[in-house]
Amino acid sequence: MSEPSVNAPRRPSKGERTRARILDSATELFSRSGFNAVSLRDIAAHAGLTHAGLLHHFPGKEAVLIEVLSRRDRIDAQSVFPGIVRPGTPEPGPGERLRRLVGLVARNSGTPGIVGLYAKLSAEATDPGHPAHHYFKERYRVLREEVTVLVEALQAEAGAPARSAPETVARQLLALMDGLQTQWLLEPEAVVMEEVVRDFLRGLGFLPGDGAGGAGVSG
Amino acid sequence: MSEPSVNAPRRPSKGERTRARILDSATELFSRSGFNAVSLRDIAAHAGLTHAGLLHHFPGKEAVLIEVLSRRDRIDAQSVFPGIVRPGTPEPGPGERLRRLVGLVARNSGTPGIVGLYAKLSAEATDPGHPAHHYFKERYRVLREEVTVLVEALQAEAGAPARSAPETVARQLLALMDGLQTQWLLEPEAVVMEEVVRDFLRGLGFLPGDGAGGAGVSG
Repeated sequence: MSEPSVNAPRRPSKGERTRARILDSATELFSRSGFNAVSLRDIAAHAGLTHAGLLHHFPGKEAVLIEVLSRRDRIDAQSVFPGIVRPGTPEPGPGERLRRLVGLVARNSGTPGIVGLYAKLSAEATDPGHPAHHYFKERYRVLREEVTVLVEALQAEAGAPARSAPETVARQLLALMDGLQTQWLLEPEAVVMEEVVRDFLRGLGFLPGDGAGGAGVSG
Repeated sequence: MSEPSVNAPRRPSKGERTRARILDSATELFSRSGFNAVSLRDIAAHAGLTHAGLLHHFPGKEAVLIEVLSRRDRIDAQSVFPGIVRPGTPEPGPGERLRRLVGLVARNSGTPGIVGLYAKLSAEATDPGHPAHHYFKERYRVLREEVTVLVEALQAEAGAPARSAPETVARQLLALMDGLQTQWLLEPEAVVMEEVVRDFLRGLGFLPGDGAGGAGVSG
């Protein structure tokens, strides 16, 4: 999919606007009811298109799903790992990228629908036959690599000899963020995701300590 | 549900054996195809019963699901938190309970079907209308409490002043274990769950350090 360049913004074409409307509708419906319970006709109706009209833009529901996921992932990656989206883009320093990553966790706390969609789809997609299996496998492979590089840089900045291998810390951080989403979706008032992640990062020396002991718990 | 006492084992009744057979069948079918894709008739056929015969033991598919989950959870809890299953049971020391908890992570690496079932169901069940919503909400509430108490005891044993509140560490440990399952299910050779968890626990001073830096990564 071609994207408008950041340096030379231009008006999106009619086709691009229709695609965006289809993806907005699909995101909303998948978030509400899950992937399996939503039909391509539901998405078309929600986007104000006929079934045939939608098929002009996407070959099927799987293709819509993959684009819903990759659109969101691309936006997030652009902030924290711009090199993934546009190879060669100069990246901000590791401290700034970590700040942005924590910012994504905070932002997720405002979008339970899409967080639930990722939680459900990543679990469903562990089945090798699921249409998003390859997508999620690649997503985690890339994230593990990128977060490993980030952790390595943060460990170098922290100065003290690192206790853990950066590959291991990358797996921990990604798992922590994912696992917190399930706990938070089930009982939002019991888990402040951002604070629990910050506490983990402080323990690694990646964020300054604050002396407070009760971070991440409320109510 | 009544359980045979550990102190006075007795032969399970015919009804108990049939219930166990139904739960074994349901576990296998749910693990393979998920909850929604399996019908009560499928479970009955797999267990060698008629539909009516199954209904004699369980009122519906939701009841089978809840018992599949709670049977497994009860077995696990009995090992790490015996007080949940039988209030008043004397508990082993915190170090031994942590050893058993890590043992469960290691054992899970041999049962991808049931790990996938929990991953899918806990994500699906974040919807308030899902039949297992209340079950999972309570499950995490109890686990957070029990792990908090365990962490508090481990922090006291470790001696050094604790960096993080035990409530926060409990949320981190549960999230880490859950999140690793998704990564591991998608790419088993890229994530050694037990080693990534051990590394986290070493960082907290709950397990002795080993000086190795590459734990949790293979291949």
